[in-house]
Amino acid sequence: MIEDKNPARTPIENLGEFGLIDFITKNFDISHDSTIKGIGDDAAVLKHDQFTVVTTDMLVEGVHFDLSYVPLKHLGYKSVMVNLSDVYAMNARATQVTVSIAISNRFPVEAVEELYDGIRLACKTYGVDLIGGDTTASRSGLIISVTAIGEQNEEKIVYRKGAGDGDLLVVSGDIGAAYMGLQILEREKAVFKANPQNQPDIETYSYLLERQLKPEARKDIVKLLEDLEVQPTSMIDLSDGLSSEIVHLCKHSEVGMTIYEDKIPLDPTVITACEEFNLDSTTIALSGGEDYELLFTVKQEDFPKIKANPSLSVIGHVVDASYGMNLVTRGGEQIPIKAMGWNSLKED
Amino acid sequence: MIEDKNPARTPIENLGEFGLIDFITKNFDISHDSTIKGIGDDAAVLKHDQFTVVTTDMLVEGVHFDLSYVPLKHLGYKSVMVNLSDVYAMNARATQVTVSIAISNRFPVEAVEELYDGIRLACKTYGVDLIGGDTTASRSGLIISVTAIGEQNEEKIVYRKGAGDGDLLVVSGDIGAAYMGLQILEREKAVFKANPQNQPDIETYSYLLERQLKPEARKDIVKLLEDLEVQPTSMIDLSDGLSSEIVHLCKHSEVGMTIYEDKIPLDPTVITACEEFNLDSTTIALSGGEDYELLFTVKQEDFPKIKANPSLSVIGHVVDASYGMNLVTRGGEQIPIKAMGWNSLKED
Repeated sequence: MIEDKNPARTPIENLGEFGLIDFITKNFDISHDSTIKGIGDDAAVLKHDQFTVVTTDMLVEGVHFDLSYVPLKHLGYKSVMVNLSDVYAMNARATQVTVSIAISNRFPVEAVEELYDGIRLACKTYGVDLIGGDTTASRSGLIISVTAIGEQNEEKIVYRKGAGDGDLLVVSGDIGAAYMGLQILEREKAVFKANPQNQPDIETYSYLLERQLKPEARKDIVKLLEDLEVQPTSMIDLSDGLSSEIVHLCKHSEVGMTIYEDKIPLDPTVITACEEFNLDSTTIALSGGEDYELLFTVKQEDFPKIKANPSLSVIGHVVDASYGMNLVTRGGEQIPIKAMGWNSLKED
Repeated sequence: MIEDKNPARTPIENLGEFGLIDFITKNFDISHDSTIKGIGDDAAVLKHDQFTVVTTDMLVEGVHFDLSYVPLKHLGYKSVMVNLSDVYAMNARATQVTVSIAISNRFPVEAVEELYDGIRLACKTYGVDLIGGDTTASRSGLIISVTAIGEQNEEKIVYRKGAGDGDLLVVSGDIGAAYMGLQILEREKAVFKANPQNQPDIETYSYLLERQLKPEARKDIVKLLEDLEVQPTSMIDLSDGLSSEIVHLCKHSEVGMTIYEDKIPLDPTVITACEEFNLDSTTIALSGGEDYELLFTVKQEDFPKIKANPSLSVIGHVVDASYGMNLVTRGGEQIPIKAMGWNSLKED
């Protein structure tokens, strides 16, 4: 939100494509034994002894992010996180990423550097190697396309398919915060537009902003489940919202699910913010996306292993497909769950 | 070039993201044993027994392609080709691709279908599986980001590094045609703008147009080299132009190269078109990009195996780095070679 009025501005065309790639990649180290060759050839070369998992996501300016309030460093970090999250949702270890950007020449080299500072921080923190990518001009906004690669033993990989009748539905962390963070940012943007002298009051909601601007993929949960010797029967990450992901798990596993409103883990600031915005917190938890928590099912016999863990909440259980997907409210009412997640292709 | 004035136009938002993905992917089959899980989970799952190669390229409307003369089906095909070409440049077999697109709602579903028709044709023809991707809205143009994955034995993989003193420099096919195809298309576009009734006269140059609009990655050359039992010492694909790729091979291999103007393989129509456009065909061969041929070095002892092959031309040889990179002209003059390839980040 704070803008340096006199930033250093080196035009990208001063470097050219190869110069820019050299500049960007000079501070990236290779840490994995499985990376035989990283950046610098026609293709990277990997040696995976186990199964390889591959996922890709694209972030588009004006659709997925608004640079008027998203710092480029955070954006770089988040663009890696959303992809690693998909690798962890397979119960795999993330090992490599490629990052491609299309960028207009309104961005100076310093802006690209900030973006890659975030990408580098994400790679370093999560122990993944940047092994390639593409850097090109764009006629308008910034586009970031990331592919993440991971590794896991065949028998440890967890699909969306696999949930069985009676399994428990578990979610990591808490949900709804990223969506409320976005609401705060959008409100402050509107306030700033109306009165640029106004100082934003965002301290109360720092947790929500962090969840929106700098999400963390749950590498730790994959590790935790391994340590607890819990093998999930199905798993997905929460990118589009809880209801949408429940629909995916049920569809792939050919089951139904019942979840309980009072079991949904909400941070207290989500509840406060929802009151302030006059929003129903359960609706936000069900429909708000971008939490990047893991949603998975475990066999009932694993319940003792997970029940005391503060990072895990059992929010429901798997039922026969004929029961469908339902939310049991605090009042005991049963409401059908529909996919209500975010869709970039729908008109606003 | 021929436009249907009354095409069917189904708005993309009618389908939504998941609907669009289902629609796009319904006609893609999985053919590789190494594809354990393709589209439809958080990540694809692969089983590669050998080393894995990974490469990615992004194509941006207005930078890499102009939809006023590039049919969407060709664009889809080409977007896969440019990536497979990088896999083949590692002397590897291409096995899987992911394709992500950002598309504005000015495109109807039928346009997306055409694009994916080209992608499907490329996958089918080259025997690769589409295993994932992302589909998102764009605020302006069309962006296509492809990641290609391949497989090869450790000892068969060829890097840019590895060319040794005395090795022969070989190029597949002929070069310069894709660049001249682009010149023809740009000219016809200008003519059409000036007089929309004018019918384009492009039949003479159909080979050049095909090389520009529907390039073929040289899977066959990787196979040929295997059949001939020739293991290249270094290799790169020709995307940015011969001079630029020679510079890459020399830089990575820490050698110099001498190439001979009269050995550069040119199609007769390239020479004709160059005369018409008043361009020097050697300059076009050196600087024009997008031929997607393979440029590689082989040991001298392999010369008998390749010399009779119509798909391969020996254009020079490797010398000590101290000699630098030089072109020997038809007149016997020696001219230093500089990287003069295309750079999307430079101003036009």
